[in-house]
Amino acid sequence: MKSLDANRALVLLSGGQDSTTCLYWALSKFPKVHALCFEYGQRHRIELECARKIAERAGVELTMLSLSGLAELGGNALTGDLPVESKPGGDGLPNTFVPGRNIIFLSYAAAYAYQHNIRHLILGVCQTDYSGYPDCRDVTLKAALRSLSLGMEANFELHTPLMFLTKAETIALAKEVGGLEELAYSHTCYNGDRPPCGDCPACQLRAKGFAEAGEQDPLLNIESQK
Amino acid sequence: MKSLDANRALVLLSGGQDSTTCLYWALSKFPKVHALCFEYGQRHRIELECARKIAERAGVELTMLSLSGLAELGGNALTGDLPVESKPGGDGLPNTFVPGRNIIFLSYAAAYAYQHNIRHLILGVCQTDYSGYPDCRDVTLKAALRSLSLGMEANFELHTPLMFLTKAETIALAKEVGGLEELAYSHTCYNGDRPPCGDCPACQLRAKGFAEAGEQDPLLNIESQK
Repeated sequence: MKSLDANRALVLLSGGQDSTTCLYWALSKFPKVHALCFEYGQRHRIELECARKIAERAGVELTMLSLSGLAELGGNALTGDLPVESKPGGDGLPNTFVPGRNIIFLSYAAAYAYQHNIRHLILGVCQTDYSGYPDCRDVTLKAALRSLSLGMEANFELHTPLMFLTKAETIALAKEVGGLEELAYSHTCYNGDRPPCGDCPACQLRAKGFAEAGEQDPLLNIESQK
Repeated sequence: MKSLDANRALVLLSGGQDSTTCLYWALSKFPKVHALCFEYGQRHRIELECARKIAERAGVELTMLSLSGLAELGGNALTGDLPVESKPGGDGLPNTFVPGRNIIFLSYAAAYAYQHNIRHLILGVCQTDYSGYPDCRDVTLKAALRSLSLGMEANFELHTPLMFLTKAETIALAKEVGGLEELAYSHTCYNGDRPPCGDCPACQLRAKGFAEAGEQDPLLNIESQK
């Protein structure tokens, strides 16, 4: 069993609100924090720019890892001749959506962490508002971590601080760990707009969370960002 | 829970001796067999050519999936500034070796199988001769499958027919399922030679297996292959 450094944490940073909150949560807990961002054919490149900006402002080293296979597995670029199943739901998923994607992300994160002697893995997934994605659930991710710990004989610890929180509670947590203002640099809008469109389901969910938390969304004060 | 087609099987085909044997094992068990090959920065491109040839001769559709992230995670192209751990062992591993690689492979295979309505996943890993790779072990792969089944809510079945076999027993199995002659097209040599060098540890292990099984390696009869 390899004993990994308990002072080191790796945050999976997407550039969104939840992973940004997790980054600040990690900074409040661990002496050495590193961020890992996956480039997998996102619909909006702005997410990657947000991740870069957020990490830079936090003074955290960011590694960008290109995962070409995910886009190929998505509904847009399959090569086999077997029938492709229709996608679960039609609710704004990118056409690169891959079932079990969070398990793949966690596996890459663990491989990265192993090679960099990092014990703590931090993932901003949330079971509370999971909309048909069983790979966001606590039971799934605990099983995945078990396989990764066995498969590398290493003592990883997985942290999912948002798992059982509502959006409003997540915003309260961001405030508690000093990351609320930094949410100005996070991306949420499905349309890729910055400033956000305000109309798409993602913008509306974000607005509802801030309203319920009784906070102003700092993103809305940055009209000049584009 | 999504019920996947029990007639369909997906074989992870690397172009090596073990996965070729698994391909023929699958053809002896399941009506519809598909092969998936990962291009992840292998040291020897000849493995991919072997996989193509083997699938073509077996009349099996092959999907090549490019996994760029694995090479980036390997020891050769890291971007972070954290210290990189030395690799476990120095025994001829490619410098793109990634701890837990089989879990990543299985995760991609499951995502592919889910989208193509394939229930059976076949992996040519072997615990018997595992040389320090804990991700080849039965317990690791069973845990990984559990996380993938939970993460996609799908009834995958994992088959690892070589898990507890010696090399000689694997060759006997290849003969039993009608794949022995096809091992002529599989690649083993660490030096990427074809015909094989005969001297490297991989060639020697292969020769030992054939000797113990009392069979001729058909690869050695194909002097003209290059």
